[in-house]
Order: sequence, then C-alpha cells, then structure tokens
Amino acid sequence: MKKDLLSLKLLSNEEIIDILETARDFRDNGLKLDLSDKIIANLFFENSTRTQYSFMTAEEKLNAKVLHFNAQGSSISKGETFYDTVKVFESFGCDAVVIRSSQNEYYNELKNLNCAIINAGDGTENHPTQNLLDLLTIYDEFGHFDGLKIMIVGDILHSRVAHGSVEVMKRLGMKCFISGPKEFMDDTAAYIDFDEGVKTMDVIMMLRIQTERHAVLTTLSDKEYNTKYGMNEERVAKMKDNAIIMHPAPFNRGVEVDNYVPECPKSRIFRQMTNGVYVRMAVIKRSIGD
Amino acid sequence: MKKDLLSLKLLSNEEIIDILETARDFRDNGLKLDLSDKIIANLFFENSTRTQYSFMTAEEKLNAKVLHFNAQGSSISKGETFYDTVKVFESFGCDAVVIRSSQNEYYNELKNLNCAIINAGDGTENHPTQNLLDLLTIYDEFGHFDGLKIMIVGDILHSRVAHGSVEVMKRLGMKCFISGPKEFMDDTAAYIDFDEGVKTMDVIMMLRIQTERHAVLTTLSDKEYNTKYGMNEERVAKMKDNAIIMHPAPFNRGVEVDNYVPECPKSRIFRQMTNGVYVRMAVIKRSIGD
Amino acid sequence: MKKDLLSLKLLSNEEIIDILETARDFRDNGLKLDLSDKIIANLFFENSTRTQYSFMTAEEKLNAKVLHFNAQGSSISKGETFYDTVKVFESFGCDAVVIRSSQNEYYNELKNLNCAIINAGDGTENHPTQNLLDLLTIYDEFGHFDGLKIMIVGDILHSRVAHGSVEVMKRLGMKCFISGPKEFMDDTAAYIDFDEGVKTMDVIMMLRIQTERHAVLTTLSDKEYNTKYGMNEERVAKMKDNAIIMHPAPFNRGVEVDNYVPECPKSRIFRQMTNGVYVRMAVIKRSIGD
Repeated sequence: MKKDLLSLKLLSNEEIIDILETARDFRDNGLKLDLSDKIIANLFFENSTRTQYSFMTAEEKLNAKVLHFNAQGSSISKGETFYDTVKVFESFGCDAVVIRSSQNEYYNELKNLNCAIINAGDGTENHPTQNLLDLLTIYDEFGHFDGLKIMIVGDILHSRVAHGSVEVMKRLGMKCFISGPKEFMDDTAAYIDFDEGVKTMDVIMMLRIQTERHAVLTTLSDKEYNTKYGMNEERVAKMKDNAIIMHPAPFNRGVEVDNYVPECPKSRIFRQMTNGVYVRMAVIKRSIGD
Repeated sequence: MKKDLLSLKLLSNEEIIDILETARDFRDNGLKLDLSDKIIANLFFENSTRTQYSFMTAEEKLNAKVLHFNAQGSSISKGETFYDTVKVFESFGCDAVVIRSSQNEYYNELKNLNCAIINAGDGTENHPTQNLLDLLTIYDEFGHFDGLKIMIVGDILHSRVAHGSVEVMKRLGMKCFISGPKEFMDDTAAYIDFDEGVKTMDVIMMLRIQTERHAVLTTLSDKEYNTKYGMNEERVAKMKDNAIIMHPAPFNRGVEVDNYVPECPKSRIFRQMTNGVYVRMAVIKRSIGD
Repeated sequence: MKKDLLSLKLLSNEEIIDILETARDFRDNGLKLDLSDKIIANLFFENSTRTQYSFMTAEEKLNAKVLHFNAQGSSISKGETFYDTVKVFESFGCDAVVIRSSQNEYYNELKNLNCAIINAGDGTENHPTQNLLDLLTIYDEFGHFDGLKIMIVGDILHSRVAHGSVEVMKRLGMKCFISGPKEFMDDTAAYIDFDEGVKTMDVIMMLRIQTERHAVLTTLSDKEYNTKYGMNEERVAKMKDNAIIMHPAPFNRGVEVDNYVPECPKSRIFRQMTNGVYVRMAVIKRSIGD
C-alpha cells in the first residue's frame, strides 16, 4: 500500500507521533530499512538545496535507487506539462516521487498516479517534512507538545512553515503566536510583541525574508529589521532557561539572526537539519517501505 | 567483449529480436543482472530529459555505478574537444559511455575508444534505443512485424525516430508511410494523406514539432496544425480496432495530440516510456553484461 | 579518526609515499574497500569537470553514498554563507566533504567541522589530489623521485599545480624548473629556457592558459604561444629517451600541445587521469576508511 504525504494537516496526531518515533528509531535505535528494490524520483520544479539534499541523504541511507530531476534544461522547456513530466517518472516504474513546486497544492492534478507522492513543499502552503522535522526537534527537547508556547517570527504571509504547521501545533496542544513587521502578519495565529515573546516562549522560530518569493516587501532595511526583529545575544539572554531557537534555514546572518545565534547553546538550527534526514527516512518508510 | 550500439541499421533482424526478447525477460520474466562492478558514464552534450532519465533508471535497476555528465558548465567551456572529454571518461575506467550529441554520427570520432559506446541520439539521424523501444511496443501489441502498416506523422525532415527506423521497419516486413505538412516531408517513406492513414494504419506514430532543433518551420499555426495533422478523439474513433497510437514524447497537447489522446485506450505513449527502461537494460546487457 | 587533506605541503614524504602505494594497491593489487556506510558530499563552488567526476568515480568504486552539490542555483543565491552551506552537509551526517572553491585556503574557516575535509582545489594555491596523481605518474615511471628534473611550462602565476607541488617535489629530491612567458613567471622555481628544458628534463609538465581565472593575460596569440612554448612532434623528438610529458588537463590543442602530443608514446596525460581515480580512492581511504 503506497501512502502519499501531501500536507501535515491530513495527518492525525497519532500518525504524526508515529512518524516522529520512527525517525527516532532510525536516529537513535539502529532501525535499518533496505529499499534497494525501490526507485524514488526527486522532482524539483523549484530550487531548494537543503530539502533536496536532505531527501537525497535519507534515500541514500535507505539504499533506494534515486533519480534527481531538476526542471531547468528539461523537457519542460519543450512545452511538456507538469502532469506529463511526473507521468514520465511513473511510467519508468518509480515507486515514489518527491515533488517540490511553487504551485499551491499541485498534487491535486496527480490524484490518479500509480506511485506515492511525497510533498517537498508547494507554493506558500505546505511543507510537511519541514513541519515534521520541526515537531521532532520540539518533541526531542520537551518530550511532549502540550501547553508549549511557540512564536514564529518574520514573513508569516509567505511561509509554508507557518501556514502548514500552526493549525496542527494547536491540535497537538501548543499555543502559537506570530510576530514581525505588520505587512507580513496574517491571521495564522495571535500576534505578540517580539520582545515580549522572547521572554515568555518555549520555542522561538525565526523565518528568513524570502525576497525571491513574493512581491510584498517590508519597508525595513536589513539593519532596521535586525534591530526590531532579529535574534541576537542580548535577546537570547532574556529567553527562558529551557527555551530554544529554531529556523528552517537558509538563514541570513545580520538580518533575522546575528552571528552569535546559529551555534549558541539555545539554537537547534543545525539539529533541525540532522532531524530532517531522519524524518524523511520515516516518511519514505511510511510511503513505500511498509 | 564490449559491443557498441550506434545505429539501428547496423543491427540484423535477429539481433533486434534478441534485444526485444531480453527486454521482455527483464520486464516480464524476472531476469536479473548485477553490474555493480561496471561503471557507465552518461554524457549528454544535448539535453534530453526522457532519454537521460530512462537510461539512469535502467542503469540503477542493473546496479551499475553511474556518472551523469551534462555538458553545461563543463570543461567544454574551457576549450576541451568532444573527443578529449569522452577520452577522460575512458581514462577513468568507464566500461560504457552513453552519449547524446547534436552532431550526426559523432561516434565516427571515437572508433579507438576502449569502452562500449551506446548512442543515445545523434543529430537528426540515429536514436537506436528509441527505435528499439518503439519496436518492442509494436511487437508486444501484434506479436510480429510482418505486413504491419505504420504512418509517421509530422516533422519527418528532422526526426531521428523516422530516419533511424523506417529502413529497418521495412527490413522487418512493415509497410511505412509518412504524413504531415509538405515542408517537413522527405523521401524516408511513401507519403499518405493523414486522414486516409488514420483509417488504414495499424500503427500511427505522431511526432513533436521540434522548434528548438531546426530552421525550417511550418507556416501553420499550432491550431491549424492541430486541425490538419493533430490526433483527436474524432480521429481516434476512425482508427482500426487493433490500431495503436505512439509518440516518442515529449508531446505538445493541443498541437499534434489533443488532451484526449495520451491516455486513451489506443495510446501506447506511456507504455513506450516503460518499455524504454527495459530496452535500455537489454542494450546495456548486450554491450557490457554478457 | 577522520583526517583532512588540505595541502600537499602538510604531508610528510612518508605520508605521500603511503598514499601513492595505497593508490597502487587499489589499481594493481586488487585492494578493495567498502564504504557503503559512509556519506561523502562533493561541494563544488567552482566548476571542475575532471576533478569532480574523478572523485565521483573513486567514491563509486568505494561504494560510498555520495551527494553531489553544485553551487549554482543553490541556497548560496539566497544569501547563505559558505560556512553555513558546508555546515548543512555536516549536519546531514556526512563523513567527509570534498570541496572545490576559488577562495584560497577556504578550509581555515572550517576548522571546527566534525567531518573530514578533502581539498579538491582552492584558489591559486592548493590542489593536493592533483599533485598526488602527478607524483604517482612520475613514481610509476621512474620508481623514485631522487634527482629527477621537472620543468613546468606556462601560466605558473595562477597555477595550483605549480604552487602546490614544487616545494614538495624539491623535498622529495626533485630538481624543479619553470618556463613560459615572463608575465606568467614567479619565484616558484628557477627559470629555464623552454627549448633547453625540452632536451634536458625527465618530466615536462605543460599547463593550460587559464583565461577564465585571471586578469593577467599573455600578449601572445595562441599561435605565437604555440610556436614559443607549445609541445609538438619536433620538440618531443628532442626529449630524453625516458622523459615524459604531463598536463593536468583540460588541454588546448593547438596552443600548449599540438594534436600529435596527447596520445604520443611519451605522453602520460590520460594515464594521469586514470591515476587520479586511484589516488582519490587512497585519499578517501586515509580520511575516512581506516
């Protein structure tokens, strides 16, 4: 039975915890899975270094046979449609396709495909493996989600991370807040003053200003942004003792995080990347390995 | 003994049937081959998504060690010749090189190379693995070639598919016809009126207008082309009961095929892609696996 | 114990001979090593076809799990720093990173990284695996280094090959000379007249004019350069009986080497490429395989 992973919202709390536990089994408990008889195609219609290489690493660790497809210089430029391009890889016998696209919910076009679809990010809405690695990082830290307070800071309006996860974080028992310039705020969660949040949150998730992705730009200069909404040594010192800093990366040093931050004791930014590999192994196992 | 695959014309009828039967053994009869001690380099001096990824899939299924080389951003831009670039991969110890080039019969330069050459398409003349997958698709359908009528429709003038296969199809006993705008016709086979052919052929092979490949363009708009030479539901209904539609892809919906066509019951377009993987496995086996 | 390979100069004579002997064991004596539990990331921030594919071939032959990263279209363009990009791959769990960069001694930034660094070329200074494959080619030919005379010809000023190896060649007992247009000479070694060197050297190493890498250009036309400093059949005939010609490649036919040269009996140019694969296997073994 092939299982798609399209959106975090479509997973029950139990399914989420299952994936996180499987990721931990791969990471901590020596779980092994050999998918050398499976073929996975990574179809990246939008660049994403971190996500792409994280999936590759996961697939390599599972011994899967992997095809890496980048849309540039491909048949797309010969007028082939998105659907037909994906259908090619189904025809090749791929067991799963990992797809990244700038189009929201592109997977609605692919309902009849005879291979598992794993969403590696779509438009501004969903990025379930990123959401799951964030959840694993929080779960590792606190052992539960119930009652934890999280503030997501920055360009909420265009953030797959925020849009894809807040609803589910609430369902898991978390209290969610957003902060940042008002032009980037939407109704994803309750607004909180950044410096107020710094002192009271368990988890602070900083976002990058995705200048390449949208027309709405903040009027703040990088320096002004950094002063108002940037995480720095002084603010880190005001955080609660057990509180942690997260960031989906890539991050911009000197803008949303100062040089001090990424490797400071409260940062889990690189830990998130490590967790990403194991979460993706768990997701692939769920899709084609059971 | 390493064996090149340069052009379909250089294969005897017996060799062709042998390759098709081996492809079927891989596809239907559980034939396994482990080439984990072989290195294959895919050298694509011209983009070709489908062919490149089809070869990759075949190579992965055979457990070969694979190097994927795209000419962009390579030493080619440092003034290295085609011959020297291929010679590099021979020096690395590659057992076979899979080459795609826009230069006709590029392989004449490579006669002394100490590794098998598998032609993945050259200029406007040869594309033997595409020809073989087309033949396998026909062979699957009818069980033989003798007396079958095929019409190839479209840009014959620049078509490796047409130029590389008609002579051999005739040798295998098929009756070949071409159709399309007169500016794309040559003496590859006898001309037949498209709508006449629709009613009388066993196999109708539609071609894409390769606007990126040539200077001679049809004066027809996409819509006019579609009206005169496009396959659509109405024309499909006029085809013989057992007749099939093929296309080497990528195809342009709304030009040579309507949306109805690619997945209609008479279409073998995606089946061709599946067959391509197995034909390439058979070709690689013949070159370096026996 | 993970071991970096940063610069040839940091290796003792004994370590160098060890690596060359290991390379020979892989090449001639059936040494096998299975690194299927290791992950290696090839991070090429500068294009280098030959070096990149040589490493890939070495890694494939060792069964390592490999990630190939090219900086174009990556998060680098989203403002991520070099350090952070490399740190991503460490976070993924890579055992080694193979890095090519146009920045001299980039590895000084990476001191605290928890994975082995293998330098695949930095700026104008170091290219230790190229140096080692050159040394292996000489060692194969003469069985020792002591007293051998080498002339390096061409763009010494911007040559990693010259800068990275002359000091060590001297330490190994070789006598080193440079030749070429005066605007490309520096104090790397003693200058010798090219035609004088042709007659007296054991090893003649021709270099490519790296027009893409620097602002200082020779005023000589390609033809003038070829006449004054190019290797050709006439000059080959004047070389000592056992003398050999080397070139790090890619080479420009008609400029520093005539068509006669690359595959003439005295040329070891393609042999160098073959040796490159085995030297890199030995280097990887030393870094993460012992």
